[in-house]
Amino acid sequence: MRTLKVALLGCGVVGSDVARYMATHAADLEARIGAPVELAGIAVRRADLPRPGIPEHLLTTDADALVTRPDVDVVVEVIGGTDRARDLITTAFGHGASVVSANKALIAAEGEHLHAAAASHGVDLYYEAAVAGAIPLLRPLRESLAGDRVNRVLGIVNGTTNFVLDKMDSAGADYPQALKEATALGYAEADPTADVEGHDAAAKAAILAGIAFNTRVCLDDVHREGITAVTAADIAAAKAMGCVVKLLAICDRGADGASVSVRVHPAMIPLDHPLAAVRGAYNAVFVEADAAGRLMFYGAGAGGAPTASSVLGDLVAVCRNKLAGVTGPGAAAYARLAVSPMADVVTRYHLAVDVEDGPGVLAEVAGVLGEHGVSVEHFHQERRDGGCRLAMSTHPSTDAALSAAVAALRASARVHGVTGIIRIEGR
Amino acid sequence: MRTLKVALLGCGVVGSDVARYMATHAADLEARIGAPVELAGIAVRRADLPRPGIPEHLLTTDADALVTRPDVDVVVEVIGGTDRARDLITTAFGHGASVVSANKALIAAEGEHLHAAAASHGVDLYYEAAVAGAIPLLRPLRESLAGDRVNRVLGIVNGTTNFVLDKMDSAGADYPQALKEATALGYAEADPTADVEGHDAAAKAAILAGIAFNTRVCLDDVHREGITAVTAADIAAAKAMGCVVKLLAICDRGADGASVSVRVHPAMIPLDHPLAAVRGAYNAVFVEADAAGRLMFYGAGAGGAPTASSVLGDLVAVCRNKLAGVTGPGAAAYARLAVSPMADVVTRYHLAVDVEDGPGVLAEVAGVLGEHGVSVEHFHQERRDGGCRLAMSTHPSTDAALSAAVAALRASARVHGVTGIIRIEGR
Repeated sequence: MRTLKVALLGCGVVGSDVARYMATHAADLEARIGAPVELAGIAVRRADLPRPGIPEHLLTTDADALVTRPDVDVVVEVIGGTDRARDLITTAFGHGASVVSANKALIAAEGEHLHAAAASHGVDLYYEAAVAGAIPLLRPLRESLAGDRVNRVLGIVNGTTNFVLDKMDSAGADYPQALKEATALGYAEADPTADVEGHDAAAKAAILAGIAFNTRVCLDDVHREGITAVTAADIAAAKAMGCVVKLLAICDRGADGASVSVRVHPAMIPLDHPLAAVRGAYNAVFVEADAAGRLMFYGAGAGGAPTASSVLGDLVAVCRNKLAGVTGPGAAAYARLAVSPMADVVTRYHLAVDVEDGPGVLAEVAGVLGEHGVSVEHFHQERRDGGCRLAMSTHPSTDAALSAAVAALRASARVHGVTGIIRIEGR
Repeated sequence: MRTLKVALLGCGVVGSDVARYMATHAADLEARIGAPVELAGIAVRRADLPRPGIPEHLLTTDADALVTRPDVDVVVEVIGGTDRARDLITTAFGHGASVVSANKALIAAEGEHLHAAAASHGVDLYYEAAVAGAIPLLRPLRESLAGDRVNRVLGIVNGTTNFVLDKMDSAGADYPQALKEATALGYAEADPTADVEGHDAAAKAAILAGIAFNTRVCLDDVHREGITAVTAADIAAAKAMGCVVKLLAICDRGADGASVSVRVHPAMIPLDHPLAAVRGAYNAVFVEADAAGRLMFYGAGAGGAPTASSVLGDLVAVCRNKLAGVTGPGAAAYARLAVSPMADVVTRYHLAVDVEDGPGVLAEVAGVLGEHGVSVEHFHQERRDGGCRLAMSTHPSTDAALSAAVAALRASARVHGVTGIIRIEGR
């Protein structure tokens, strides 16, 4: 029985856990694959760092040589970044290796090209770890729901922003304060841009939408808003409405069935929605399908061990495929659905409008909204120093209509400001 | 491109939805499988019943002839029951057909034998629909977590009992009342034995444990208690402790790593545990693994369409395997872990003990528990007519020790009765 050889690219938080579990779970892996599997080498940038538990003789700084070794069956890519990772992966394909990657940015940006390259070389490209860490999500979407029709994916897929929003909600903190705490506790990176601006969630949304709808979805197709503009007032307004604010990745099939929309933005969800209970840095994803109805998948969205769990699950699958001489279900973009622009997306909104305190102001605001086709569902008025705040939730409206209405409100002399605009989901 | 042919056994709630979705989702199924798939025939007991939307020419009462047809690639078994279903499935294997089944009772009772038969004929046996309806659970356990080590599966896998317990909790109803309502609403069958006595959950627990631990687990290995003895007082006691009572299927890897325990019984879980929020007839399963940490899978546990979703997902997988000339990951019982008897299982307990109201009674009760190695964690005493009720929760204790302690308490002259014994999980 031949031994399958794995080239590991990267030995950071995830890579070192992959190497560690490959050693401690070796017997299980062999039983599940049907053959022994071992590391051929580990490509690192610096070979002289202390790496407890990692066999030194496996380390190499020559990643190119490692991925072209003829005895390598599978390449596990956990270095992150795009250009170098893409080049190594395509080189690996060319040398007949299947690839397991945790690289959401790369897959979101170049998934189509990479899948085509894998297919042309008859090898696998798997990346369960790229979305929602340990949570089995891509395999259930692609395989378990393969006989169903997914209509919606709604998820919390970024732990950093969930931690920050959760802290704002539970401690009444404002955004800079909550981000500071997340950074101090290691939940946010020194440069938190990718998380707080929604780039990370947008990459995951693109991957999820592509698999859920069998349609090619690019990063540019994803409408993206981060959490930097979320205020303590937004959180308080959500509370007053029995809601909580979450950064959601939302992939929707249009009512016509022929289009999809993909977006990442903060949204209020009702407290009795299962996603509302997802605290701290956890991730959870709701899936709605024709036959299955509503499903939820919950778990750790990041971290070395959880990500390694997904990587190793994929490793078992691609090794089994190698032994059987087959490839698994690849990217399927047969449905070729159109991606709707954000302007056409229909949601409910919460609006906070500060107005002067006087007769006829409410009528004027309602009139402006009505002219733009925005209908108010709930309405609450309270006096504040020198004026009134109107807190409203709307009936479903297109983004274009809402934006035009807000612009018109802002142009009104009696409106001091539109101080809170946040979508409402999960109702 | 050849068309794959499916023999459908059974056209009840699930079968008719399978047939319906195969028609409406035909294009998607073809794209995902890589070849068209169509029904070769539908075996029913009575061909003369009205079946809206089901093509009459497909119906046959001769199931044996259908499964032996040489053009049948896959048999979908949704007739339930054990003997007849087993015979048809083994016949199908003998004729080269792969099988998708939703039959938890059959798989739990004869899974080992059936897997061996499938393997010997080089065909697949898939049964995602047998456990927790639409929820992708067996595939994630077997494939997504294939590189990890599962330590615990803790789930609500029976909708009927969850509905009844939820009703007892929310409406303060007693068991017969809640069951009556479940029956009236169609959540419980006319003969609810399989659900309320825990047989259905036990079959699912056996299947889950087998897959989670790669160990053969028989129905007889599963300790089983239903919900018929759960009283309104138990529910109230749970409430007083910030808990809710659920019927749980629990599969544990022993601390030694070399044994497992599998059990189904009612248990209190804290209100802040995610399973506590699973209401009505929904199912949810917690999985704890070495690397992945805690995962939860949530969704509809029964019903025609949700079950059909899982059946069709499996159908796509076995059809893909057929075309590729391979079989999927089958049953793996390589770990051969011992199944511990219930007496050795360690849990916390809630106990309600009615005693006479007098000095030294508490000391006597505590003494009896202590003699048997049962240690009290929390304790609450309240006066009732003619005596006192001691409500206690214990530190973890073996089932054997607890049972012996309860027997000793019951033998004490000053103890009027041990009126509530219920395990505590999820802390």
